[in-house]
Amino acid sequence: MIDLRSDTVTRPTPGMRRAMAEAEVGDDVFGEDPTVRRLEEETAALLGTEAALYVPSGHMSNQLAVYAHTRSGDEVWAHRDAHVVANEQGALAVLSRVQPRVYDAPGPYPDEALLAAWLRGADDVHRARPRLLCLENTFTGRVVPRAEHLGLTRFAREHGIRVHLDGARLWNAAVAQNLAPGAVAEGADTVSVCFSKGLGAPVGSALAGGADTIAAARRARKLLGGGMRQAGIIAAGALYALRHHVDRLAEDHARAERLAAGALEAGLAAEARTNMVVLTAPRGRAPQLADLLAAEGVGAVVLGADRLRLVVHLDITDADIDGAAAAIAKAAAAL
Amino acid sequence: MIDLRSDTVTRPTPGMRRAMAEAEVGDDVFGEDPTVRRLEEETAALLGTEAALYVPSGHMSNQLAVYAHTRSGDEVWAHRDAHVVANEQGALAVLSRVQPRVYDAPGPYPDEALLAAWLRGADDVHRARPRLLCLENTFTGRVVPRAEHLGLTRFAREHGIRVHLDGARLWNAAVAQNLAPGAVAEGADTVSVCFSKGLGAPVGSALAGGADTIAAARRARKLLGGGMRQAGIIAAGALYALRHHVDRLAEDHARAERLAAGALEAGLAAEARTNMVVLTAPRGRAPQLADLLAAEGVGAVVLGADRLRLVVHLDITDADIDGAAAAIAKAAAAL
Amino acid sequence: MIDLRSDTVTRPTPGMRRAMAEAEVGDDVFGEDPTVRRLEEETAALLGTEAALYVPSGHMSNQLAVYAHTRSGDEVWAHRDAHVVANEQGALAVLSRVQPRVYDAPGPYPDEALLAAWLRGADDVHRARPRLLCLENTFTGRVVPRAEHLGLTRFAREHGIRVHLDGARLWNAAVAQNLAPGAVAEGADTVSVCFSKGLGAPVGSALAGGADTIAAARRARKLLGGGMRQAGIIAAGALYALRHHVDRLAEDHARAERLAAGALEAGLAAEARTNMVVLTAPRGRAPQLADLLAAEGVGAVVLGADRLRLVVHLDITDADIDGAAAAIAKAAAAL
Amino acid sequence: MIDLRSDTVTRPTPGMRRAMAEAEVGDDVFGEDPTVRRLEEETAALLGTEAALYVPSGHMSNQLAVYAHTRSGDEVWAHRDAHVVANEQGALAVLSRVQPRVYDAPGPYPDEALLAAWLRGADDVHRARPRLLCLENTFTGRVVPRAEHLGLTRFAREHGIRVHLDGARLWNAAVAQNLAPGAVAEGADTVSVCFSKGLGAPVGSALAGGADTIAAARRARKLLGGGMRQAGIIAAGALYALRHHVDRLAEDHARAERLAAGALEAGLAAEARTNMVVLTAPRGRAPQLADLLAAEGVGAVVLGADRLRLVVHLDITDADIDGAAAAIAKAAAAL
Repeated sequence: MIDLRSDTVTRPTPGMRRAMAEAEVGDDVFGEDPTVRRLEEETAALLGTEAALYVPSGHMSNQLAVYAHTRSGDEVWAHRDAHVVANEQGALAVLSRVQPRVYDAPGPYPDEALLAAWLRGADDVHRARPRLLCLENTFTGRVVPRAEHLGLTRFAREHGIRVHLDGARLWNAAVAQNLAPGAVAEGADTVSVCFSKGLGAPVGSALAGGADTIAAARRARKLLGGGMRQAGIIAAGALYALRHHVDRLAEDHARAERLAAGALEAGLAAEARTNMVVLTAPRGRAPQLADLLAAEGVGAVVLGADRLRLVVHLDITDADIDGAAAAIAKAAAAL
Repeated sequence: MIDLRSDTVTRPTPGMRRAMAEAEVGDDVFGEDPTVRRLEEETAALLGTEAALYVPSGHMSNQLAVYAHTRSGDEVWAHRDAHVVANEQGALAVLSRVQPRVYDAPGPYPDEALLAAWLRGADDVHRARPRLLCLENTFTGRVVPRAEHLGLTRFAREHGIRVHLDGARLWNAAVAQNLAPGAVAEGADTVSVCFSKGLGAPVGSALAGGADTIAAARRARKLLGGGMRQAGIIAAGALYALRHHVDRLAEDHARAERLAAGALEAGLAAEARTNMVVLTAPRGRAPQLADLLAAEGVGAVVLGADRLRLVVHLDITDADIDGAAAAIAKAAAAL
Repeated sequence: MIDLRSDTVTRPTPGMRRAMAEAEVGDDVFGEDPTVRRLEEETAALLGTEAALYVPSGHMSNQLAVYAHTRSGDEVWAHRDAHVVANEQGALAVLSRVQPRVYDAPGPYPDEALLAAWLRGADDVHRARPRLLCLENTFTGRVVPRAEHLGLTRFAREHGIRVHLDGARLWNAAVAQNLAPGAVAEGADTVSVCFSKGLGAPVGSALAGGADTIAAARRARKLLGGGMRQAGIIAAGALYALRHHVDRLAEDHARAERLAAGALEAGLAAEARTNMVVLTAPRGRAPQLADLLAAEGVGAVVLGADRLRLVVHLDITDADIDGAAAAIAKAAAAL
Repeated sequence: MIDLRSDTVTRPTPGMRRAMAEAEVGDDVFGEDPTVRRLEEETAALLGTEAALYVPSGHMSNQLAVYAHTRSGDEVWAHRDAHVVANEQGALAVLSRVQPRVYDAPGPYPDEALLAAWLRGADDVHRARPRLLCLENTFTGRVVPRAEHLGLTRFAREHGIRVHLDGARLWNAAVAQNLAPGAVAEGADTVSVCFSKGLGAPVGSALAGGADTIAAARRARKLLGGGMRQAGIIAAGALYALRHHVDRLAEDHARAERLAAGALEAGLAAEARTNMVVLTAPRGRAPQLADLLAAEGVGAVVLGADRLRLVVHLDITDADIDGAAAAIAKAAAAL
């Protein structure tokens, strides 16, 4: 099977397994695990923040950011389809008791004009208090231009709104724009990054930001049950990924381009976005297309009636791309 | 001042004051206040439900319904501008820990097709559980046709989604459609009604619905601190309003029509919706128009850059309508 | 029936009914109800605080204080039997997400030594953060000596712990000690007082405290649904009670003494505590004693296997005391 | 350093490291990690439950149980010093919005008579709803007799109260009583067990129970951010521990006995409880004793003014016990 459902399905490489097997560990709840500390320090350095915190999942990283930035009854702004709103089981309400206010922008980021309208009358007793803007970059594979990101974060700062950046695939945005990761994170108060998607580590994400915020998040990580004892074992895999698998994302992007080209040749509208390819199926037939691909041994995820997502990752080779392109051609013909 | 900001600003009439002064009371936390009981029984009878519960505000009535219908982590569907989402201080998240999913329908109610799409994949572990549809009728003064209401509530029931109807101005919908209140509430699992808006009572709303749901809401009313001791005093005002002020809403509607006609004559786009008039101010000048009206002694509420709301109520006479129309003409000329 | 179950069962007096019927009102959600404002100002003045807030119930008053003082994950200290812990439906957890830590002191207030022990290691990541001490005076009728109250509140202040005083019956404590209400409230950051218990108003309590805290509580009152429109109607009853029914509590206390004396004569252990009498029934027979009293037309509340509470209030006359004493004598003989 | 602070400080053994390095993995959020599945199946089989769930920490395991068993506003019964109440940062209130009601029993478990009293009047509107009893075995090292455990769980079941057993050190209870783990868990609806304390795995606990409850907990694990991708790496360590490190706990217990005997010889009151030794320091000098031990290279945890805890675990050898005993003798002499 050529598994293009998500970049979360990667398996650890031999080098990564070796790093984990030999990891130096300690009790991280007491702050005594040297590998976790090193991972947190290197992550913070890469992202240009004062501190970072290793956590079991990107979901927890995002939710800890929200918990640290907000109070019960606050309002959080995000894209309608942002992961933090649409894919985290309603945790905004359950864990932080904040209410999302969503925009339906065509791109990943909202218009300043809309946010300005949302700020008017924000102290009305009928309204939740606006407090946090959650951005996402890349967003379904799309990269946000640096100028747009910096402009919007400046606007938020000027109006007392904090910014959290869900950078589960920030590494892809950095590589695609030929920027340092810290440049992509600039302007955000906190940023989540993931070691287990494109980077291929088995477990874990990090939340990076100012020292006070990360200290609050560290405390809240224990509250949620995310404090792990000798976490250095898995942190070693994440550290290995951080050191060896960031630059190679360029290969995934090139393969995604090649896969999209193949789909276009097969007569399907297809768009390559960093490590993702979004296929458009005619007449609401995305589910059928996914079934046909599955029959050919290619895993994909349906995004809606018309669209399908294929994700290129560490375990996908050039031969897999050829195989997937052939499967797409066959499926398109049968559609 | 001709106060058209809201129908919440009415003062009790002499008859209503007399009813309150003479009310028979008891300790309602022990279920011993006869006036409260009578109000609850008459409300339930009017709305065709098994039970009803008297509460201090429409906000509490809506939130108790949500609390009774849902569990932490559920998803609640509503119009982006629904009172329960936009005007209750984020209480969905704080009190019930549920997350709203909002639609942007041009009218008060959503398309079935949209809801059907939202139901797909609802058991995915990444998603909040859809549980409750919150409707509102009237919605910024607009009446929902009975067939549309019944169709949508049937759809919800068939898919295991509960329905709460925010009927703060349900009385207006009933009078405007020449229907019994119970006919407007039909199909909903719970319905909120208000005694202190169009009906003119000083304090209170009611939540009506099935006996089990109302029992749960009664318990939760205490949790929120809404259990009042000798509440019969204010319940007497509500009961008086319910008996004497429902049919007369037709007068408010006629006056709103007349006010809208006056505004049109003055060259402003104006729409009468039951007891409300929505004025459109050219080129984003709604705030200026409101200021000009205030200078003429007419209170209004700005709805957005372009729109203004005027609400006709119990304390507004024909002379007030003439005065308000004259003020609008003067303001329109100065705009 | 001589209803001694609670001082919450009182009915409004004719003078109070007249005050309510003639109350000047406005929309209090817009801050425009003059009677509510006057009540809040007079309450704050009496208690020596910057501000006060009128609310529908003592439960809401206490819970708003907790909500204003704390954040999710804080620890609240209180007597195991304090109203805020034992009689508010677990609202500490639901509304404020704080965890009680309870003491089992023989008297109303805890030892400083115990609190000092609870402060040790309070920043441990395994611990909830201590934030608020909830006191109650009177506590099941018992008055706390002024020196003890001032000492403990000073201790709390020195250690950064806020203090909320549940003064539902603070008026009784003031009258019993011949102190001004403000002297009883001194040292607390917030204080709840009740108009519908000993004072006999039909509805309402107030939360008093610093301007910032009360502003936060005012906002949260709307969140809970406690914002009422023309609340001046019932506020007028509360204002009447505040002006006319505080000093007369001395009569209730004298009657409670007389009732306790009667019970002692009948051979039952009995203790008068301000307006309450606690009877001790031999061999776990409190429920039977309550049944016997009910058969004689006297309402009482069982506190446990051995104890029964009788509460003297505004509607209880000297003749009622004689009647109740006779009933107790008869019941004691039959026990 | 001889680290006797806790059994959480153990390091993975070479065999365990090998098992982790070679673990077969998959995406566990999609339920596709074979090692995690195997661990969950073996855990459930050992404990005699339908299902089990692997989680990052014992804190999360306990809190998921509470979340699955309760609803907002419920009351949870536990020992005042139970881990779930005293050592989980107030998570009961934050995550599940339930309020603890605590007992101060001298032993780990409460009297039935007390619970029976707590059940009386449980449906009163002023009270939180009793729902869950949280037990802990071992409890600060103490083992609960099987008959007492079965009696109390039967009592709870008969009264509709669910039971969660915090069995972080259930393995010790089983070995100490020569019982199968399932026999110790019998009667509980859910049980938490830990792989990273006495068993020495680097990360993880499990929650075991009925299939429906565990399915709910699995969903809630994602809500808290505890869903990990290729968790098989660390699950392999846990599985290794489960297979190889349970029976050997008898050695820890014997070493604890020997250490306690040494302390007694040195003139200190000392009690061995499974793998723990509790030392009593005279005249409130537990902190000083801890400092003296630290100076000798022995890590311990202060439990209160008078008591100190030493925990024997996988990394402690007979020589360590000799060293610790010598350090205790020296410290006792200097105290």
